[in-house]
Amino acid sequence: MPPITLSTPLHHRWVLFEEKLEVGAGRWSAPHVPTLALPSLQKLRSLLAEGLVLLDCPARSLLELVEQVTRVELLSPELRGQLQALLLQRPQHLIWTTRTRPCCWSAHPREASHDEEAPMKEQHQNPLRQKLPPGAEAAAVLAGELGSLTQPLGVFVRLRDPVVLGPLTEVPLPSRFFCLLLGPPTLGRGYHEMGRAVAVLLSDRQFQWSVRRASNLHDLLAALDAFLEEVTVLPPGRWDPTARIPPPKCLPSHHKRLASQLREFKGSSVRRRAPAEDRHSHRPHPPSPELRRTGRLFGGFVQDVRRKASWYPSDFLDALHPQCFSAVLYIYLATVTNAITFGGLLGEATNGAQGVLESFLGTAVAGAAFCLMAGQPLTILSSTGPVLVFERLLFSFSRDYSLDYLPFRLWVGIWVAIFCLALVATEASVLVRYFTRFTEEGFCALISLIFIYDAVGKMLSLTRAYPIQRPGSPTYGCFCQFPDPQGNESQWIRTKPKDRDDILSVDLGLVNASLLPPPECAQRGGRPRGPGCHTVPDIAFFSVLLFLTSFLFAMALKHVKSSRFFPSVMRKMLSDFSSVLAILLGCGLDAFLGLATPKLMVPREFKPTLPGRGWLVSPFGANPWWLSVAAALPALLLSILIFMDQQITAVILNRAKYRLQKGAGFHLDLFCVAVLMLLTSALGLPWYVSATVISLAHMDSLRRESRACAPGEPPSFLGIREQRLTGLVVFILTGISIFLAPVLKFIPMPVLYGLFLYMGVAAISSIQFTKRVQLLLMPAKYQPDLLLLRHVPLNRIHLFTGIQLACLGLLWIIKSTPAAIIFPLMLLGLVGVRKAMEWVFSPQELLWLDELMPEKERNISEKGLEPEYSFSGSDSEDSELMYQPKSPEINISVN
Amino acid sequence: MPPITLSTPLHHRWVLFEEKLEVGAGRWSAPHVPTLALPSLQKLRSLLAEGLVLLDCPARSLLELVEQVTRVELLSPELRGQLQALLLQRPQHLIWTTRTRPCCWSAHPREASHDEEAPMKEQHQNPLRQKLPPGAEAAAVLAGELGSLTQPLGVFVRLRDPVVLGPLTEVPLPSRFFCLLLGPPTLGRGYHEMGRAVAVLLSDRQFQWSVRRASNLHDLLAALDAFLEEVTVLPPGRWDPTARIPPPKCLPSHHKRLASQLREFKGSSVRRRAPAEDRHSHRPHPPSPELRRTGRLFGGFVQDVRRKASWYPSDFLDALHPQCFSAVLYIYLATVTNAITFGGLLGEATNGAQGVLESFLGTAVAGAAFCLMAGQPLTILSSTGPVLVFERLLFSFSRDYSLDYLPFRLWVGIWVAIFCLALVATEASVLVRYFTRFTEEGFCALISLIFIYDAVGKMLSLTRAYPIQRPGSPTYGCFCQFPDPQGNESQWIRTKPKDRDDILSVDLGLVNASLLPPPECAQRGGRPRGPGCHTVPDIAFFSVLLFLTSFLFAMALKHVKSSRFFPSVMRKMLSDFSSVLAILLGCGLDAFLGLATPKLMVPREFKPTLPGRGWLVSPFGANPWWLSVAAALPALLLSILIFMDQQITAVILNRAKYRLQKGAGFHLDLFCVAVLMLLTSALGLPWYVSATVISLAHMDSLRRESRACAPGEPPSFLGIREQRLTGLVVFILTGISIFLAPVLKFIPMPVLYGLFLYMGVAAISSIQFTKRVQLLLMPAKYQPDLLLLRHVPLNRIHLFTGIQLACLGLLWIIKSTPAAIIFPLMLLGLVGVRKAMEWVFSPQELLWLDELMPEKERNISEKGLEPEYSFSGSDSEDSELMYQPKSPEINISVN
Repeated sequence: MPPITLSTPLHHRWVLFEEKLEVGAGRWSAPHVPTLALPSLQKLRSLLAEGLVLLDCPARSLLELVEQVTRVELLSPELRGQLQALLLQRPQHLIWTTRTRPCCWSAHPREASHDEEAPMKEQHQNPLRQKLPPGAEAAAVLAGELGSLTQPLGVFVRLRDPVVLGPLTEVPLPSRFFCLLLGPPTLGRGYHEMGRAVAVLLSDRQFQWSVRRASNLHDLLAALDAFLEEVTVLPPGRWDPTARIPPPKCLPSHHKRLASQLREFKGSSVRRRAPAEDRHSHRPHPPSPELRRTGRLFGGFVQDVRRKASWYPSDFLDALHPQCFSAVLYIYLATVTNAITFGGLLGEATNGAQGVLESFLGTAVAGAAFCLMAGQPLTILSSTGPVLVFERLLFSFSRDYSLDYLPFRLWVGIWVAIFCLALVATEASVLVRYFTRFTEEGFCALISLIFIYDAVGKMLSLTRAYPIQRPGSPTYGCFCQFPDPQGNESQWIRTKPKDRDDILSVDLGLVNASLLPPPECAQRGGRPRGPGCHTVPDIAFFSVLLFLTSFLFAMALKHVKSSRFFPSVMRKMLSDFSSVLAILLGCGLDAFLGLATPKLMVPREFKPTLPGRGWLVSPFGANPWWLSVAAALPALLLSILIFMDQQITAVILNRAKYRLQKGAGFHLDLFCVAVLMLLTSALGLPWYVSATVISLAHMDSLRRESRACAPGEPPSFLGIREQRLTGLVVFILTGISIFLAPVLKFIPMPVLYGLFLYMGVAAISSIQFTKRVQLLLMPAKYQPDLLLLRHVPLNRIHLFTGIQLACLGLLWIIKSTPAAIIFPLMLLGLVGVRKAMEWVFSPQELLWLDELMPEKERNISEKGLEPEYSFSGSDSEDSELMYQPKSPEINISVN
Repeated sequence: MPPITLSTPLHHRWVLFEEKLEVGAGRWSAPHVPTLALPSLQKLRSLLAEGLVLLDCPARSLLELVEQVTRVELLSPELRGQLQALLLQRPQHLIWTTRTRPCCWSAHPREASHDEEAPMKEQHQNPLRQKLPPGAEAAAVLAGELGSLTQPLGVFVRLRDPVVLGPLTEVPLPSRFFCLLLGPPTLGRGYHEMGRAVAVLLSDRQFQWSVRRASNLHDLLAALDAFLEEVTVLPPGRWDPTARIPPPKCLPSHHKRLASQLREFKGSSVRRRAPAEDRHSHRPHPPSPELRRTGRLFGGFVQDVRRKASWYPSDFLDALHPQCFSAVLYIYLATVTNAITFGGLLGEATNGAQGVLESFLGTAVAGAAFCLMAGQPLTILSSTGPVLVFERLLFSFSRDYSLDYLPFRLWVGIWVAIFCLALVATEASVLVRYFTRFTEEGFCALISLIFIYDAVGKMLSLTRAYPIQRPGSPTYGCFCQFPDPQGNESQWIRTKPKDRDDILSVDLGLVNASLLPPPECAQRGGRPRGPGCHTVPDIAFFSVLLFLTSFLFAMALKHVKSSRFFPSVMRKMLSDFSSVLAILLGCGLDAFLGLATPKLMVPREFKPTLPGRGWLVSPFGANPWWLSVAAALPALLLSILIFMDQQITAVILNRAKYRLQKGAGFHLDLFCVAVLMLLTSALGLPWYVSATVISLAHMDSLRRESRACAPGEPPSFLGIREQRLTGLVVFILTGISIFLAPVLKFIPMPVLYGLFLYMGVAAISSIQFTKRVQLLLMPAKYQPDLLLLRHVPLNRIHLFTGIQLACLGLLWIIKSTPAAIIFPLMLLGLVGVRKAMEWVFSPQELLWLDELMPEKERNISEKGLEPEYSFSGSDSEDSELMYQPKSPEINISVN
């Protein structure tokens, strides 16, 4: 029998979204949301109603199935044979399967080659196979026109046991459903569209659930009707049906579909609470069990220790996974970069009282100790922005009053440890819930601005150290004067230079003077003389170039992650190592041109940066004894800062969306920080608290994700590999890296300043406050469709932003006055401002703009005032998309 | 009677897309595509089927309408009164109208205030009003729950004459349709959704057309069913129904909907030709009437003159519109910027044989003459990249052979004019159809790359002119030597400086030497001596900074247009004037620091830049007589270049999508270019042809657009103000600007180089070739859903791109050899390469990758081989969105 070719074959596959085989291009189209025409669904319904529906068909192979299917009364024997031959053809193109709840549909098998049902080699090698989870099933849908048919033929088969349908499916998966839609060639693309409709139906979880349980045709049609009840309809004049809709970032959950059906059923009495719940998951509000007060002294601490102790062995065993290797490499590089940049900044801020060496040593010691003891071992300890700012203020304070810095600092550290232990004892960590987003944002914005200001300021101070040579400025005047052998001052006499202009060294006879550059002059025992000897030209602008290059390069690399270029692994790598690469680029550029730019100061041996001190800080030094008591005052301020910095970071890391299994340890963490405070102060090392960004990066590199995922579907998040080993190894490696120091002296300072600018800009652009400030500049028409804007009047949003800006301005002014050191107190004052805002804004507005404070929240839930949702019943119009877990906000630490 | 408040009012409006009143935020939501649930449409259908349908209701006011509506049998008299009161309430919130084919729907009017039907003041002041076209109508849809009702009440009214429904509509427009849907409070949001469904229906053009003609309930329901036939359905598990879909860039045309219905009706026999047609509109293929050969000598030219002559008076009268003022300002600034930058580059390329003054003068004279005479007066004449490149090659050629440049150039010009006239006579312009996109892109890419290479190269040559001071390099050695009064060489004796180090001038007694900087030294009659006197520090890096700043600033400003910040007028302005602003920023930065950067050379008086020549170029100069004949050879090459550059630009400007009414004049334009060639060569001014980008900007600034447009709808394009006056005024102003010259000398050269780089990058990133090169770097998974990728296999695309890259490489190599001057011939060779490609690629592939050449195209239409569409019937799946007119591609000229 000659092969029957009907018309052009069209192939589609549905794994989760629809993909079409682009015949011309020979590739699968981008996955898109399948769109159907309503008539094709309706025609399908009537075709199935009149057609053959076989439920629990006992066929065990494609051959048996075909025999069963063609046993329809209306077919003539000749037609039956034709049809059987057609169905047993091997399709030319690859065919298409789908997933656990799958469906696959190929329009017209073409080119005959009757043969075995054994899956073909290509089927096994199909890369799609690896994307499908174990237990996935396929379904085959065949549709088309057949000239010899006189009336439409619709067959729907549910097999009793799933059967591999040989070459019919793209990958050799067992199929439970089979559908055949054929008709005389009149309806245009009608059968094709009906086939697509069956496929879309079969790839719908709800429909599949119903059809698997259907016992007769009536059940099948009821399932189709239920599907129709739920479809979304786009009007023809406002939407082009041929446009492909890219897969949405999140799909409606099965749960939500059930709920919406329930709501439909119960009417308006079921209130949708999802948004409120989701907002609360942002912060454990109501508090997570770790943040519940026990009422006993050290009660929370004891609980933390008990909880963590039970996980301790698993904290090491859980690390035995190859993923942990790459996590170690990534976090190690990030930590070292951090240690270099902060060490460099600290060295300048404290005029060399601390430096890169202390930064490395402190990071290694404190980090490793914390990883071993802490409540949340995924936390990476680091010098953070706020503490750095405070240390700088403390140093300039002690310089102004001629104090011996390190001993004074030791006492501050001792007092901070005492205060922190008191906070642990009194379970003060539960108060963290009063720090709403308003406080966090104020904190973050101030620190980011200080970073940006400092980076630019230090860059400009370089241009003062290496002044720019304006025309007429005294660059040129410099000569080198040698003492004559008798030790007299040199004499100037006239000599005739050998070459008129290109003299490098004018032999001045008795005079012993030359035009050697200053360094060479000094080397040869001469003395550079003249106004131009102190200027080094070209350094200023080259430093600006290095600064801008490293800043822009780091920014650009960070954005590579969301570009379309390169494979995703490479993109992720470029983005993750953006700081390291920016530093390397800057060093390379500097080394290439070989200019005498200012470099990072690194000690040549393993000894403290401050000359003449040992590793242990003497407790008094040159300070009067009473200063050890007076240190309690700045210590109080620093305690506030450390408490805020540490605990807010801890809350962010322990958010519900990370699905941590081993629980948090807020009290234990603070205890560890206090102990390490004591240690680092005694050794004169930097102070450390948990760093938000780097810890989030750590957690992110330990994500467990579902490997198999359908085209268009993002991988789903399974959890985090919670363990202590990666952190520990990172800090041991950091400790070893102290011997890298000689390499570090090649890093130009402007490159580090560029990175500081990048950190400040990255931190400030990650907070909602910045988005609201941007709204001030946007005409209402062009504003993005933010949920916030749907629920709060624009002028109220602007008022809130304005108050935040005013607070920030006030903080900045305080920071610039001699009272700068009290700024932690002022940051705490933000909590008060936030409290006062309750007089200005309604709870609903505050819920959208910020979040609620504990009492207010209790009030609201007691009064049954479901925020916002009692005001209007319209909220089911807010897309669930809006409430999806966003990428973690960088709220606090700038590092 | 107390006011009846039912529940929370929900307001929506449909002008073209749906907007929801965000009650909390007190603003209209962003416009979005309305999505409906299928059941609400079905429920609506049954409610209307059982409800009251009044067609051609004679009511003349809201009061009468309400009386008519409440005259339903099933209402008790009490209920009737209640309902009347309810309907006559004035709604608290603004209500919502729609457009010509409009509908408006407010769910529940709240808060009573019975009063006059006169439209309220706010209604008149509503800003929406100005967005609606004259003749717009509104429709009011009211829906909700009413406790006292026992069964649903559906009323649909078509008024005989449109009536202003008082406060029911947001703006006081007459309404023709009114719909009321009320029911007992059981169905949840059911009535609300049904109301939205009515509104969506009424805002559908097709449905409205049917309902306006409906004579009974049956017709109404049939219209609803026809609507349902056309809707697009999204499956529930793959699309969140609450997600808002932003308005698509283009809506399905009414025409297309009719066509699709027709196709549905006729089955597969109707083939969709739209894509092919659209592709052809990209280039007049089959040729526009202006490009049809007459076969007579100068036939096309005579036709052009005849056609344009009839429009000549209107070419001046049509300019009487305020829009032309702003167009003049914009194009004037662009032209002047162009004249400065190209003048500067030309001055360097020809070693001062031409300069900024010639550029200004030539632009003014040639431009104005062209505007008065040309076939397409919207064209702006300018020095373009290709001609500039050729001129540079010609100059270096004449320098290599020690020719007198300007006389030689005069003869080249004369010959070019002769060749061009021959091309006009033979109607050669019709050959332009052989220049496919392949040729255009090769042309554009080469020129862009030359620009980028030159900009970077010139920048680097600056760092050679102002060397960077590495440590140890001889910066320091420079002193100032004065002759003593007797004219002897100065003597060196020892003096004791007053201040040890901060000496500015060491008084050396008899010696008469000092450490003054070289310029001051020379001023005082001294002589700078020493190796460091010739170096100017800091200039190199500052130049790099200026270069990067102006480049990045121009790029950033260009992108402001698509940002969300600032009102659109301001954005457009910043983007349009990006070059001017970048130059101003660069000049400001330079002036602020006051460094001696190299500046644009501008003559002080109105005379040719080359010293010693008059305005008229002598025909022979120092050249032998036979050179006037030999000049024909380079002239031939230049003629090819000018022909390609001029005619391809002309084709782009005369594309069908601009809807020009007065026709093109390809032959006349080329004639004008030839005449001006003669003139500018004789005067030693730069050569000019049509410039694509600036001419497109000119046309864009003269767009006529529909003013009134609905929220979410882009304004529609009506045409271009075709006239000669704006161009003329621009060039007169340019002529006057010659006296601006003294200001121009403040422009640093690095800023101009930065702009050249910007022009090169902008031009090369606008062509499809660049997009295909980018595809080489993108994994298939992340490639955008381009139409090209749907139809041509990826390896074929890469092959095509590879051939283009190879051609480009070859051209580049030729350009770098001494044979550089023949590069126009090589560009023409691209046509041959393209022809040869027909052996490698199928016509279908070439149609997608490029376009077809004339014979091939004829063959295809003769054979009835409808490209691509005969291969697969699936093409109606390609969205019409893809075929929409794109923003004009910058294909040829870099300027």
